[in-house]
Amino acid sequence: MGTPEKIQCDFLIPVIRCWWHDLLMFTLHPLLAADTIEIATWGVSRVRLMKDANYPWLLLIPARAGLTGMHQLNAADATTVMSEISLASRALDMIYTPARINVAALGNVVPQLHIHVIARFEDDPAWPGPVWGTGLAQDYSDEKLQRTLASVKQALLDCAP
Amino acid sequence: MGTPEKIQCDFLIPVIRCWWHDLLMFTLHPLLAADTIEIATWGVSRVRLMKDANYPWLLLIPARAGLTGMHQLNAADATTVMSEISLASRALDMIYTPARINVAALGNVVPQLHIHVIARFEDDPAWPGPVWGTGLAQDYSDEKLQRTLASVKQALLDCAP
Repeated sequence: MGTPEKIQCDFLIPVIRCWWHDLLMFTLHPLLAADTIEIATWGVSRVRLMKDANYPWLLLIPARAGLTGMHQLNAADATTVMSEISLASRALDMIYTPARINVAALGNVVPQLHIHVIARFEDDPAWPGPVWGTGLAQDYSDEKLQRTLASVKQALLDCAP
Repeated sequence: MGTPEKIQCDFLIPVIRCWWHDLLMFTLHPLLAADTIEIATWGVSRVRLMKDANYPWLLLIPARAGLTGMHQLNAADATTVMSEISLASRALDMIYTPARINVAALGNVVPQLHIHVIARFEDDPAWPGPVWGTGLAQDYSDEKLQRTLASVKQALLDCAP
């Protein structure tokens, strides 16, 4: 059996290596970067707005290198991500009072783990189907984009625990 | 300020009422019941197999009355549901080694909160699109259904923490 210092070292080195790896090695997938606009950096996830004016649509990207599925998050990160999904959902609910909030981690096209949080309405272009693969994204006008970013940022602050 | 008994009573009555309400008032939506087969009852979720042989497809239905979105789960239930999603995903991953696990809570057609956990393959009928609204469900043969239920139940046991 090792000394307390040895045990502590055996425990800490992988933790530090893991944190260092995540910090250095995580880079946002270029397709996600191209399709979205930065809103915030949370405990685990980057929060971004999808460039599609058809839907109020947030993307949460856990900043952990190499993940492709929710089940690959460690337990602590999974709990944090769940509360981040909840916060993003409550913010969209508060602003838009949609018919439904769709939450999904698919990753069939872009493998990097990313979680969609989308406000859905009974008169939106894809209702009641899913939004993926149905029609083209609609560009935001500059004015609507600034208004949307401002209201989402404010709602995320107002809904934070 | 009330007595300790009064405070405890004020705290406990809503908790018991809430638990009682969930226990008595939750009933599985008839469309979900018709489309799926029971596998297990977990801490929060009912676990069921979708009757579609095109995809290894589990449904988790949090047994809480009146919920339509993940953000309506209380914090403790949300953490449990996240670990239930992870367990279901790891089980499908272990059996099928799919290209991707899709996780989604949509609810545009059936409002009762239900979470899809689906193993996806590059040669499945909907790849890389989502599975919802693309083609008809394929019936399981009796033999394949029994084999699938048995292997999923075993994997859920093997992957449990």
